[in-house]
Amino acid sequence: MTDFDRRHLLAATLTGGAALAAGGTAAAPATASPAPAAAPRPAAARPAPAPGPLRVHLVAFDGVEELDLFGPLEVFALAAALGRPVVPTLVTTGRPGRVRASFGTQIEVPGRWDPSSADAVVVLGGGYRKRDGAGVWAEIDKGTLPQGLRRAVRPGLTLVGVCTGVFLLHAAGLLDGRPCTTHVRAKQDLRDLGHDVRDARVVDDGDLVCAGGVSSGIDAALWLLERELGPEAASGVETLLEFERRGTVLRTA
Amino acid sequence: MTDFDRRHLLAATLTGGAALAAGGTAAAPATASPAPAAAPRPAAARPAPAPGPLRVHLVAFDGVEELDLFGPLEVFALAAALGRPVVPTLVTTGRPGRVRASFGTQIEVPGRWDPSSADAVVVLGGGYRKRDGAGVWAEIDKGTLPQGLRRAVRPGLTLVGVCTGVFLLHAAGLLDGRPCTTHVRAKQDLRDLGHDVRDARVVDDGDLVCAGGVSSGIDAALWLLERELGPEAASGVETLLEFERRGTVLRTA
Repeated sequence: MTDFDRRHLLAATLTGGAALAAGGTAAAPATASPAPAAAPRPAAARPAPAPGPLRVHLVAFDGVEELDLFGPLEVFALAAALGRPVVPTLVTTGRPGRVRASFGTQIEVPGRWDPSSADAVVVLGGGYRKRDGAGVWAEIDKGTLPQGLRRAVRPGLTLVGVCTGVFLLHAAGLLDGRPCTTHVRAKQDLRDLGHDVRDARVVDDGDLVCAGGVSSGIDAALWLLERELGPEAASGVETLLEFERRGTVLRTA
Repeated sequence: MTDFDRRHLLAATLTGGAALAAGGTAAAPATASPAPAAAPRPAAARPAPAPGPLRVHLVAFDGVEELDLFGPLEVFALAAALGRPVVPTLVTTGRPGRVRASFGTQIEVPGRWDPSSADAVVVLGGGYRKRDGAGVWAEIDKGTLPQGLRRAVRPGLTLVGVCTGVFLLHAAGLLDGRPCTTHVRAKQDLRDLGHDVRDARVVDDGDLVCAGGVSSGIDAALWLLERELGPEAASGVETLLEFERRGTVLRTA
């Protein structure tokens, strides 16, 4: 039995509605019963999945943009509620507690970040135009989040950069020589930093996946579900979200 | 000068990045400078706008689905950050404080709800499959939110039902004889309650606007922006969200 098969077996045995996440986000029942598991597909150029549920950490920080965060979180949490073996957890590199998002929403993040327990880390953006306010620039200046990302790298971990969160991956030195993308209004800045910026909504370079601006993060999350758990998992979430992933995923690995 | 023109004048005079909301959501600068104001368009079958910014209340409750809430909130808050005259405020009918959303996200909602200060009230969904858990059914059983909606009705107020939030409008007795829609998996239930459920992603019946499931709420918010502030306001937000509203808005008024 392959690791991919194990995740599919888990999909069939886990009950929808179980509280799956130990950290800030507990999965809850949603609007449909578990969908049938997908047929296994051949392995692609991606990290070998761990023999358990897909553990996804979403990194919140002061100034994170609301939809950057809650689009992907919704995708993973809904998949979990549908019985898919995925455990999304909201984390912060700072002291656990209240995070103030870009438009003022105050979110409680109870869990401290331990990336060694993640299979995928989703790095969101926000506050890109505020060089002196909360957001990605403040996080780059502080250094804790980029350092955490650099230390998190290990075989089997996929990093997912969403929107201007890709600049945090740049600050961590994790973009060099890798095809990537970012928010449409930040692409030239990323090119000026010497990076290989592509025009697809989602660019998959194996253990590095990048999404364009804001709502593209939903597409990247759906793509990660498809890649790791099969197309049935992603399609079932799309149906309930009344959202369809758009465009070709540019696979470069 | 018409009221519609006044809002456009405000769009030109307000600075992007001002903290516009008095309640739970303060607008903050985003990823672009203010877009030019749209040309006025003829009045349609909709409430006459008040001579000031468009005040949008988004009603949070325990069990509200994350993307139901943060999709529309992002649209209105980003428009505000771009200098458009719109003030989104996160409110709750309960005691101000922590709301626990459908997938476990804990959100602080500091403001108590005073719908007399709203031009539009956005009613979100969540927890539809949990008849005995947090979500729309619990809110219907408690009665406070439907009663608040019923009392809020006045000339000039637009009610926007998103996803299974439309069942809260049903419980308030505000759907009778009105074309409406809801989440794709809940449409038959709403028809069984005797309502005129349509298949468009957004149904605009004048002072009642309904959206389909989850991400359709983003479309409804973009449509409300277009209807109240003109197409330039909506298009500018779409560009930065990398999201395009889909389908024909079914206007029935």
